[in-house]
Amino acid sequence: MQVISGAIQTQMAGSSWIRRMFEKGIELKKQFGADNVCDFSLGNPDIPPPPCAADALHGLAERVAQPFGMGYCPNAGLPEFREALAAHLSVQQQTAVQAAQVVVTCGAAGALTSFFRAVLEPGDEVLCPAPYFVEYGSYCGHFGGVLKAVPSLPPDFQPDVAAIEAAVTERTRVLLINSPNNPTGCVYSQQTLAALAELVNRVNAARERPLFLLSDEPYRFLAYDGAVVPPILPLSPFALVLGSFSKNLSMAGERVGYLVANPAMPDVATLMNAVTLTNRTLGFVNAPVLGQRLAMALLDQGVDVSVYARRRAAMDRVLREAGIRFALPQGAFYFFPEAPGGDDQAFVQALLAQNVLAVPGRGFGFSGYFRLSFSVEDSVIERSAAGFQSAVAAVSGGR
Amino acid sequence: MQVISGAIQTQMAGSSWIRRMFEKGIELKKQFGADNVCDFSLGNPDIPPPPCAADALHGLAERVAQPFGMGYCPNAGLPEFREALAAHLSVQQQTAVQAAQVVVTCGAAGALTSFFRAVLEPGDEVLCPAPYFVEYGSYCGHFGGVLKAVPSLPPDFQPDVAAIEAAVTERTRVLLINSPNNPTGCVYSQQTLAALAELVNRVNAARERPLFLLSDEPYRFLAYDGAVVPPILPLSPFALVLGSFSKNLSMAGERVGYLVANPAMPDVATLMNAVTLTNRTLGFVNAPVLGQRLAMALLDQGVDVSVYARRRAAMDRVLREAGIRFALPQGAFYFFPEAPGGDDQAFVQALLAQNVLAVPGRGFGFSGYFRLSFSVEDSVIERSAAGFQSAVAAVSGGR
Repeated sequence: MQVISGAIQTQMAGSSWIRRMFEKGIELKKQFGADNVCDFSLGNPDIPPPPCAADALHGLAERVAQPFGMGYCPNAGLPEFREALAAHLSVQQQTAVQAAQVVVTCGAAGALTSFFRAVLEPGDEVLCPAPYFVEYGSYCGHFGGVLKAVPSLPPDFQPDVAAIEAAVTERTRVLLINSPNNPTGCVYSQQTLAALAELVNRVNAARERPLFLLSDEPYRFLAYDGAVVPPILPLSPFALVLGSFSKNLSMAGERVGYLVANPAMPDVATLMNAVTLTNRTLGFVNAPVLGQRLAMALLDQGVDVSVYARRRAAMDRVLREAGIRFALPQGAFYFFPEAPGGDDQAFVQALLAQNVLAVPGRGFGFSGYFRLSFSVEDSVIERSAAGFQSAVAAVSGGR
Repeated sequence: MQVISGAIQTQMAGSSWIRRMFEKGIELKKQFGADNVCDFSLGNPDIPPPPCAADALHGLAERVAQPFGMGYCPNAGLPEFREALAAHLSVQQQTAVQAAQVVVTCGAAGALTSFFRAVLEPGDEVLCPAPYFVEYGSYCGHFGGVLKAVPSLPPDFQPDVAAIEAAVTERTRVLLINSPNNPTGCVYSQQTLAALAELVNRVNAARERPLFLLSDEPYRFLAYDGAVVPPILPLSPFALVLGSFSKNLSMAGERVGYLVANPAMPDVATLMNAVTLTNRTLGFVNAPVLGQRLAMALLDQGVDVSVYARRRAAMDRVLREAGIRFALPQGAFYFFPEAPGGDDQAFVQALLAQNVLAVPGRGFGFSGYFRLSFSVEDSVIERSAAGFQSAVAAVSGGR
């Protein structure tokens, strides 16, 4: 029988590459043992939360019976957490932000769907540099939005500002950027951000329905070699930032994130009220209270990022030794190398034959490359060296 | 500027009555002091979680660094929690259910939106007895669904099966019921449920796209005087149940709920996979892990329901003494009395003048009645007696 809708049937048929590789990984681990598989397919932080997380949780256990202990909280988040976040983000974004411009959401994903529901009319376009996190398409598609991807410039994948400008139409409602980038590891430069902001400001000068500049920044804490992730809020009154505590506190399962808008945005209160409403009526209601309190207690803490830096160096060595070409990622925990032989799907298959799991670039809207997550034990990276070399040999021999 | 969409602008203009009363309450409490206001407007459990909740949380604090401690978990929920829930629901619903037919969601609200997104085509109708929880309209409206309310039969508000049958069209995709009911406190009888299930089964005999029978049961644990809340799953292969731990464990802020389907439903696996997908792509990703583990630890526990029974008796006395007419609620923590004078909005205004907060029935799609939540301190109920009597006198004098 037709138990599901046509749109969801289509989505299920095109199930994401990340998920397919995830399932392939389970299969391989069953067959060969987990110690014989090198799984670089998942962007799931494997570093434990900061040690003080346990203390914070013990503290929360003592107050579950108090008001807001675990009961409903205001839809936009615990007032004291919004205040604390506003102060934190004012420093981070070099822009004075009040609690009224901050909505606490169920992770960054919840921020995206609540925002899209609040602003999109059916047929509106969301512009996004490619490669991109593939769920963006579903997030806006639920509400009639259409994702339009604009290829970034390899090998380092800074957004192509001229191409983005050429792609703007009357229906473009959101320019969605993501730095440090998943999957490329690119940190957008000050120059790139300034050019994108200038474009958005120029477009809006002639518009009654503004084009929003939305920056997805869950990896902001993770930049290497002293790289700076420039703030976007000072560059445009139409800028918004969303983030989460999934990666920097390794609490992805708790689903706590936020959306913050430039206070100088016209009608910013209407927009934040609308996002508070959609956050409620999409069924999130409020971000989980225990998670909000944990994130608040740990707001200035973070996981030990030196671990990621060490793994990045190890992966760098392994890939070089295999003769694979790539730009060293400046942030996040991904490499996005060129697929030897040119065909990303073929090369990922060759890696699979070596029990090495990666995700083909086409899973991010960018063929010819592939993604490796180095959020894995150091030993997995070391162990993978022979596999990469054999896979490269296999696709070279095949030409 | 036009920062939000037309649909959301409309929703904001018609902001819910519950919320309006909530805001009015804040205002009155500021003006007269909290001790001088009797607020019956909110369905927010005020009884603390069971004492073992604190122990469970201390236990979780010890394992935050372990896999799934706070990291991503499978989109459909922690496997061990799904297993435990399936066993629990098999007893409750008198139907053998497997983990595969259970999806853990972000509260009952998340279950509703994920389900609606999975099954509705734009223009599909969701039938629902009135009065009803007003957010149902938004939940299905996000995806082009249209809520059609069918008045139930006062004073006890059993659904009107004949009227529901007459309202079924080719576009009716879901029959959504809610027992024990918010706002009426009605527990649907075995006879009512059997008749509704028979209707659904008969309709589906001639259909390729089934009509689902969806039962929203967050108040299942709360029935009085030995009343039984009959299970719906045994009555139809097209039946699904959703519930949450917001009320029975007083953890509404943690957002943990579930959807369970009759295993005999045709293509049930496709439906559950689709709900797992929409749960992910609507941005819930997974129900918060700490909340899932808490609910699992407390699965056979519950708040002290004798407190609610005592308050119900007190409210019963207060309303009788004021000469207000009502059916004694069989479940949940609401009264839904007739508005003296006939005009619910006028009577709620008369109550407001006495610093007593209630929600007019029109806020639930049913004018002429009003809702009182007795999830409040006993003292508030006692204190309200004079206010009810004065309000009744005021509207009687006004006629």
